Amino acid sequence: MESAIQTVVGVFLKSAKGKENLGEKDFQNLVKSQLHNIMTDTDSKEAVKEMRKGLDENHDGKVSFEEYMTLVGYLANSLSQQRCVSEETPAEAETEEAT
Amino acid sequence: MESAIQTVVGVFLKSAKGKENLGEKDFQNLVKSQLHNIMTDTDSKEAVKEMRKGLDENHDGKVSFEEYMTLVGYLANSLSQQRCVSEETPAEAETEEAT
Repeated sequence: MESAIQTVVGVFLKSAKGKENLGEKDFQNLVKSQLHNIMTDTDSKEAVKEMRKGLDENHDGKVSFEEYMTLVGYLANSLSQQRCVSEETPAEAETEEAT
Repeated sequence: MESAIQTVVGVFLKSAKGKENLGEKDFQNLVKSQLHNIMTDTDSKEAVKEMRKGLDENHDGKVSFEEYMTLVGYLANSLSQQRCVSEETPAEAETEEAT
């Protein structure tokens, strides 16, 4: 678990390249390279831009570490719900995935 | 990164043993077994109890997934600050760790 948290932190620090926040391009690259398996439209500049705006609570056009962790929280939340559903109805979930 | 988020989610689900929230014992075991390298006092029941109370926003005596992710956010934040300091002053940081 500790190394998982280190990984989440490391991805931000690497993407921010020493800056305190992620700029537009940094955030786009992070989403495209790191999150394309668990998010949709990571190739769409427009979709990623909308997501960034949604996270950008202080409207400075950048993504701070706190705003980045909000995204991580959303993703974790959706993953936890997916896993709860797949654990409750393994048979049904498989047929859903197969179609 | 995706597997890191999966790990964070998996630790919660495993510790909650199918329940929606972590009870006192579940949370204690999680902190003790998973976070003893990056947190202090994980062996102290009292300290972990105080931490749980601090996270327990709705005061139901349990730790929900959202409250758990708040803890993950705190830990990520403190790790990111530690790494920024160690990257800025590698020499000094090493001597600090050695003492």
